[in-house]
Amino acid sequence: MMEPSGDEPSPGLEAAVHRRHDGTFRWEQVEMLAYKQEGSAPFRDVTRQVLINAPELACELRYFEIAPGGYSTLECHEHVHGVMILRGRGSCLVDATVLHLDTNDLVRVPPMTWHQFRAGEDEAMGFLCMVNTARDRPILPTEEELSAMRQNPVVAAFIRH
Amino acid sequence: MMEPSGDEPSPGLEAAVHRRHDGTFRWEQVEMLAYKQEGSAPFRDVTRQVLINAPELACELRYFEIAPGGYSTLECHEHVHGVMILRGRGSCLVDATVLHLDTNDLVRVPPMTWHQFRAGEDEAMGFLCMVNTARDRPILPTEEELSAMRQNPVVAAFIRH
Repeated sequence: MMEPSGDEPSPGLEAAVHRRHDGTFRWEQVEMLAYKQEGSAPFRDVTRQVLINAPELACELRYFEIAPGGYSTLECHEHVHGVMILRGRGSCLVDATVLHLDTNDLVRVPPMTWHQFRAGEDEAMGFLCMVNTARDRPILPTEEELSAMRQNPVVAAFIRH
Repeated sequence: MMEPSGDEPSPGLEAAVHRRHDGTFRWEQVEMLAYKQEGSAPFRDVTRQVLINAPELACELRYFEIAPGGYSTLECHEHVHGVMILRGRGSCLVDATVLHLDTNDLVRVPPMTWHQFRAGEDEAMGFLCMVNTARDRPILPTEEELSAMRQNPVVAAFIRH
């Protein structure tokens, strides 16, 4: 795929700057990663790929994909998420609000706000997430915090933990 | 569209964090902007929308759309572009290399590298572009630099200025 053609005189530069999408939400030279270490936090069926990451850029752009029925970790942190849904549909909890998300929708997760993303039961959801490269680690809820959240029936019905 | 429903108890938070895509590459609460001031630099048929911009984030995510036959400005700058094609197909020049771009492809434009994006003749191209919020202003080529670039027939055929 990297062979030079008539109008691509610099295959070295092409390989360094262009990462083609393969049509299945995988990209050339982009490694498929575990979302998190198994057992480190509750989640189900989430993958992670780092799409844009350069020493000159102060943010990273990651692509997360949640399989049907899967969910990201319920967590919070100081750093902000700037999210765009790239594939499919799903939902997310932000604080005590459930958002229904469709392709290309945008979501901002404010600092220190509990949040969790879920794919639909029958449909994967993939999303871009922009974060500062220098950022704090996520915090998981304590049992007391979980109990407090579950006082709200909408939140109780949504969260997976 | 912002009315609270049974499971959306915080319409204030929803409006603050969720910007729905309308199906035509426009988003709620996102202003359609001119690409640049007319006459400030050569370009044709480009629009700009700032999708993600928050005081806590060190980068912005912008969406540019180039109409069929249109092109961005041929320019360079110290700051890096992290690009993902979101809609359609087109091409770009990076240094002396022409890249053919398809939906979801990624492109990194290194520092101080001449670059220009073009839509196809019959198809618009829309792309996300991540940049540091604090960044330098683009530089346009001098006549001497343009002449030097045009020594390469591939570059000469590609650029619009």
